[in-house]
Amino acid sequence: MGDARRYFELPTPFKMKRGGELRGARVAYETWGELDASHGNAVLILTGLSPSAHAASHAEDTSPGWWEDMIGPGKAIDTARWFVICVNSLGSDKGSTCPASIDPASGQPYRLNFPELSLEDVADAAHAVVAGLGIAQLACLIGCSMGGMSALAYMLLHPGSARAHISVDTAPQAQPFAIAIRSLQREAIRLDPGWKDGQYAIHADPHGDGAYPDIGMSIARKLGVITYRSAMEWNGRFARIRLDPEQRDDEPFGREFQVESYLEGHAQRFVRTFDPNSYLYLSRASDWFDIAEYGHGSVHEGLKRIHIERAMVIGVSTDILFPLQQQEEIAEGLRAAGAEVEFVALDSPQGHDAFLVDIENYSKAIGGFLRRL
Amino acid sequence: MGDARRYFELPTPFKMKRGGELRGARVAYETWGELDASHGNAVLILTGLSPSAHAASHAEDTSPGWWEDMIGPGKAIDTARWFVICVNSLGSDKGSTCPASIDPASGQPYRLNFPELSLEDVADAAHAVVAGLGIAQLACLIGCSMGGMSALAYMLLHPGSARAHISVDTAPQAQPFAIAIRSLQREAIRLDPGWKDGQYAIHADPHGDGAYPDIGMSIARKLGVITYRSAMEWNGRFARIRLDPEQRDDEPFGREFQVESYLEGHAQRFVRTFDPNSYLYLSRASDWFDIAEYGHGSVHEGLKRIHIERAMVIGVSTDILFPLQQQEEIAEGLRAAGAEVEFVALDSPQGHDAFLVDIENYSKAIGGFLRRL
Repeated sequence: MGDARRYFELPTPFKMKRGGELRGARVAYETWGELDASHGNAVLILTGLSPSAHAASHAEDTSPGWWEDMIGPGKAIDTARWFVICVNSLGSDKGSTCPASIDPASGQPYRLNFPELSLEDVADAAHAVVAGLGIAQLACLIGCSMGGMSALAYMLLHPGSARAHISVDTAPQAQPFAIAIRSLQREAIRLDPGWKDGQYAIHADPHGDGAYPDIGMSIARKLGVITYRSAMEWNGRFARIRLDPEQRDDEPFGREFQVESYLEGHAQRFVRTFDPNSYLYLSRASDWFDIAEYGHGSVHEGLKRIHIERAMVIGVSTDILFPLQQQEEIAEGLRAAGAEVEFVALDSPQGHDAFLVDIENYSKAIGGFLRRL
Repeated sequence: MGDARRYFELPTPFKMKRGGELRGARVAYETWGELDASHGNAVLILTGLSPSAHAASHAEDTSPGWWEDMIGPGKAIDTARWFVICVNSLGSDKGSTCPASIDPASGQPYRLNFPELSLEDVADAAHAVVAGLGIAQLACLIGCSMGGMSALAYMLLHPGSARAHISVDTAPQAQPFAIAIRSLQREAIRLDPGWKDGQYAIHADPHGDGAYPDIGMSIARKLGVITYRSAMEWNGRFARIRLDPEQRDDEPFGREFQVESYLEGHAQRFVRTFDPNSYLYLSRASDWFDIAEYGHGSVHEGLKRIHIERAMVIGVSTDILFPLQQQEEIAEGLRAAGAEVEFVALDSPQGHDAFLVDIENYSKAIGGFLRRL
């Protein structure tokens, strides 16, 4: 399937918000479309916790991306007009420097020696990529889920770096329900004996014991999927439909309902494709994020420090992880700061993941906004 | 603190819904108040998954019960008027026969040899206790959470066994969101190496290896608490308040926010006080429950087979585990069956657990209903 990733070398040292620094670090990214002569048509996408920079298929990597139906010629994010960049978050293991990367100081993977990571660092690293591409100001910065929080940090820490912003299913700060969920996900990983305080077998190692926190990662992923979707969607989709006898496992208390099999499928596709320590770092960075830190304890005042021309803020009523009320706070804050803001509240049944599933409504909103720029 | 439990010996064999049977089984229960001469003032309470029969303090056990503020002389469930019975569910380890009990056939604990348990069996066992006390018809049957499902089974399987019913924060069938949560709780226990396929150390055993699924039970309990409460309550209660440095643990990715410490406290009070195999059996029984089985696949038709005179159905808008819409279904079904039904939709912020916390509103509703009987 090829590989469309490019890599940007971050300056050394790359200083981080909470006091650490990285040397020789890099950020993976992909691009679609052409940067125009004035460098004024760039759109940057910041991702959720687990997606890679491969947001859409590419001549060099024809596999479908995680937002395939949104990005391309004639699509909502129209690559015939825009030069689209998607960055793999610093700390994620999809090409950017992360806890599974080799620490040049030791020649060994960082593991838990990776410095404390914040979404401000994710934002700074993404900004460095954009600046490195010769782009002084983005036409639009799009942030989805965790990436929406990174996007707020990006605009606040780099004034004038974006003319417009699309905020998708995100929040201006982590609230206790989301913290509780993520804390429990981290705990499932940390308490798995296979995690070994972060010293599990990162790569197949014939001399190691092969320990890996498969169980913890599976539980974390299933809990994630439960909170990414909605009860309403599942009532329609799974109801109480049972698995056929041959689809069941023979374990005591094993899977019996379709919804259990659906969760298992999600877990199996995730475990061993995402580095557990990287997951822990990004998860905690999400808990730490709070725009109120920049507004003397007030979310509204923090948001008021972000100066852009226009914004669209989208969320869904069925999202239990990033509730609609938090999108409303973002819209109000950006508006108070002087931006022209459109607030789009959708009733998509899919919950937080609606931006990945309800392409019809998200396309209409995002495509419409971008066309009017 | 004494012990106010009484025990009722179930008939041998006690036949169970899914084909198994128990021999020499018993049910623990407690009572408050006096049974009148006509045996017409009995109120039975069926509990959620984890509570014991100790719903309120008692001369023989003065420790506060799990519904202490609701039950007593002059309280909503007025023991000056009613003879109140609370039964420990069959399969629960608080005195009733459960997977941790000795199987008379082997002289060893049942563990996973305990027969498949359904809420219909829980209902049948409770009905046997009531009949054994010489009560032909309850003045009122109250069921909370899982106990509300058991109560529906009780009334359906034993026509004429209750004149009135109070349904509290429950459901006529398990929906996929609740199944997903409970399935993940069971998985956390089953995948804990300390569970040992159910062969963990039930009681302190100096010759055993002491294996116990502490981690799995802790994760299961925390996930439970997350779904028993509500995001709204926690925004007001915990917000983003951090622990004092001396309250934090030194573990990597350890607790930092108050909400994390709150969950840990709940888990510590639960682990080692509830038998893991019993938890698995009752959890799965909850998933299996579906009143539609008695209505040719229709919840409404199933409920229509329950014949009582009056009912009150209560739920809260913030309950994500047993959503208000499911209480509405119960109210509509019982009404269609001919009962006079009051439907009470509360806005208590505490979520599913509101019946244990928002005593003011639940007292008013339940006390008012009972006074009008």
